[in-house]
This record gives sequence, C-alpha cells and structure tokens, in this order.
Amino acid sequence: DISSIEIIKEGKTFFWSGRYHNDMNSRDTLATELNVLENFQPIVPETYQDASILVLGNLHPFVQSSVLDQMTNPSTLVILDTMNFWMDNALEPLIEVIKRVDVITINDEEARQLSGEYSLVKAAEKIRNMGPQTLIIKKGEHGALLFGKKDEIFFCPALPLEEVFDPTGAGDSFAGGFLGYMAAHNANDFETMKKAIVFGSATASFCVEKFGTERIAEITQEDLNQRVQKFVALSAVNL
Amino acid sequence: DISSIEIIKEGKTFFWSGRYHNDMNSRDTLATELNVLENFQPIVPETYQDASILVLGNLHPFVQSSVLDQMTNPSTLVILDTMNFWMDNALEPLIEVIKRVDVITINDEEARQLSGEYSLVKAAEKIRNMGPQTLIIKKGEHGALLFGKKDEIFFCPALPLEEVFDPTGAGDSFAGGFLGYMAAHNANDFETMKKAIVFGSATASFCVEKFGTERIAEITQEDLNQRVQKFVALSAVNL
Repeated sequence: DISSIEIIKEGKTFFWSGRYHNDMNSRDTLATELNVLENFQPIVPETYQDASILVLGNLHPFVQSSVLDQMTNPSTLVILDTMNFWMDNALEPLIEVIKRVDVITINDEEARQLSGEYSLVKAAEKIRNMGPQTLIIKKGEHGALLFGKKDEIFFCPALPLEEVFDPTGAGDSFAGGFLGYMAAHNANDFETMKKAIVFGSATASFCVEKFGTERIAEITQEDLNQRVQKFVALSAVNL
Repeated sequence: DISSIEIIKEGKTFFWSGRYHNDMNSRDTLATELNVLENFQPIVPETYQDASILVLGNLHPFVQSSVLDQMTNPSTLVILDTMNFWMDNALEPLIEVIKRVDVITINDEEARQLSGEYSLVKAAEKIRNMGPQTLIIKKGEHGALLFGKKDEIFFCPALPLEEVFDPTGAGDSFAGGFLGYMAAHNANDFETMKKAIVFGSATASFCVEKFGTERIAEITQEDLNQRVQKFVALSAVNL
C-alpha cells in the first residue's frame, strides 16, 4: 500500500513516496527526493505564454512563480495546487505565489495547517484573505468543498466505488477535469466552478479505478458525462 | 479534547470516555465501564409496546434483543444503532439482533469492520445481506451515506460550521432527527429516508455547536427547517 510518483528527466529523478490512509484522503509522506526538480527552471513556450487558464502544478513555489512571471498576458484564471511539503519547507515563497493566484487547491489537513484554523469555514476565510478568491478543499473519498465569496459554498461528494485500486494521481486528475470544464465554458463565476468541481470529481473517480493513468486513458466523453450524472443523483433530494 | 458520556442510575454509573479525532468522525475509546448497564434489563411500558417506530440505542445487543422481544405489534420500522465496542465484545449477539432490524446506523470504519470489506459499496451489500434493508453510514464532518436496494444510494454532506464545540451526542441527535421525520411522514420508502437523513444531519449540526444538549434544547422547528435548506443548497448543482 505504498504509492510513489517518479519523474525522470535527463537521467535524474524526482521521487515521492508515501502511504495513503484508509480513506484515500490523508497520507504520510515517507520520502521526497527532489533531485532534478530541485533546480528545475521551466521555460514556458512562446505559444503558451498567453494561455487564458494557467495551472501551477504541485512543485516548489519558486517554480510556480517563475512560470507566472513568464506569462505575457495575465491569464483570466490561475489555479495553484500545493501540499504540506511546501508549507513545511518553503512557506514564505509559497505565501508569495498564493497572493498571485485566483484558485488554490489543497486538502483539508493542509487548509488547517496553512490557516491555523480548525474550522474549514474559518480556514477558507483566512486563505481567501491571503489572495485567492476561491479555495477548493479536496477530501479524497469524502468529496470536495468549494469556497467562494462569503456564504458561497458548495460541496461535491465523492462517488462510493466498488473498487478503489490506486489513489495516486486522483488530485491531479481532479484538477485536470476541473480546468477542462472551465476552459470549455469560458466563465469564472461560482456556478460554473460548481459544475467544474463535479467534472473534476468524476474524472478523479475514474483515475482511482486502475493503476496510474490506465483508466483515464480509456474513457470517453460519454463515460464522463454518465459519471457526472451519477454524482448529481447521489445528492439530489427534493425538500 | 476528551469526550465522555456518563449515565447514573440507582447510584451506579455507566461511563464511556474517548477522544475524537480532528475530523469528528473517528474516535479512540479510552475507557468503557458498563457498570449499571452490564445487567440492565429494560422493561418497555405497555403503552410503548405497539410503537410503529422502534429505535434500539447503542447498548449491548442482548438489551436491544430484549426490547425487540417485548414489542407486541411488529414495528413498521426498527432502527439499530451500534458501534465497534459491541463488534469487538459481543459480535454473535450483535449479528443475531442485526437480522431482526430494518435499518442499521454505524460509522464508516465500523461498516468496514463488520463486513470485512474496504469498499463502502461492498460493505453495504454485505451488511444488507445480514438482514437490514437499509444501512446508514455516519461519517461525522464528512456527512452521511444512505444505502438502500442495489443502486439506491444517497449522500448527505455535513454542513461546514464556523464553530464545532463538542461532537459528543451528534450520532444520537442524528438518529433523533431521522426518526422524527420518519414518524411524522409515516412512510418507509427510500425517498422519505433521504429526506429524513437531511433532517437528521441538520439536527446533529446543531448538537455540535454547544455542549451536551444545550443547543438542541433551544432551537425551534423554524431553525431546523432553515438549517435543512442550507444542507439542500450546499450540494445543489444544475447539470
């Protein structure tokens, strides 16, 4: 039950290894070896520099800031993914880059760590005061919470699955589904984000069914749409 | 952060003490001293013996069976609440009483323990095969899952609260809100149970805001109805 992510580039490796807890939500990091990513200086290709949506993946905040600096047109939506590793090891640069983004995605324990607040409502308020207008709290098999302006709050459950094979990459496929929906709909309002959260959750629900990217690679748009309807039905109640 | 429940009767005490984890869902039991409840033999008053709804609280399965035996008319709805303590210490009589009930309420870890299945979908199927037609899985701050017949599944989120003061009794107030709704609507179908789950969750959300029963004692029906609408809005999405 040990998960790992390994990136190999020019003969050097980035390596993360950890153990997910039973609920696919919390995890213990066993080892993180930055190696090649320690001095990674990404160069954004010219044709990408005016992208309207920018997702800063879960890497060192310096890398995330560097990518942001290279954008020539301000993107209409900048999403930042991060984790406790950077809060522990690079908090100051993390806070700097958080100031510059529209949406931040973290899990519930990380929201508590970053804000120092136990209540997720209070944590969301504090983190939004740090810069991002929107906070997405991923809770693994317990779903995802979306916090917008005061009192704007949406909860998307996770679909209980018969088989959960491998949680590694669920957060990344969640982000992919979310931004894919946002890109396709060209709007930044809370209602659109709610729908994007459901698409992100549905995408992630496929990810965990097989190893690595296997399941994601084989699904069709129709599979995704059907899964989205299962998510909607799961919480539908007429009261 | 240590919770405890103490029942004093005829000078003897039942005492449970435990520590809830951060998510108000899982808990470590520090001590359980049955004392007076060890040999508790409840006598159901004659006027209660034909109750249409029967809730067997979280006590020894022998006590639960004894109450069931005293009912003169079969209740239309029998709900059983239990916990890991009885699975560890009285599994056989627990399985016997589970056979005789319509609804069982436990938390996610207990559903896994009782069924031996990690997947809650599979756990629900196994537990339903043990007798109850319906399984409610309480997940504390992560909401509640309702499993009915195959493919009948409903998820009710928990409302993220600004203040969470004391989780003790949340499960009991959930059960109270649930059965209150069921009793008022005199129906046992899945749609009614979905609505009852939302009322149960709303009731529990008040419970944790103050110590013990303080908050529950001061709310009105209108407060409850408004809270229910917040739950509905929390997951509402138009897709």
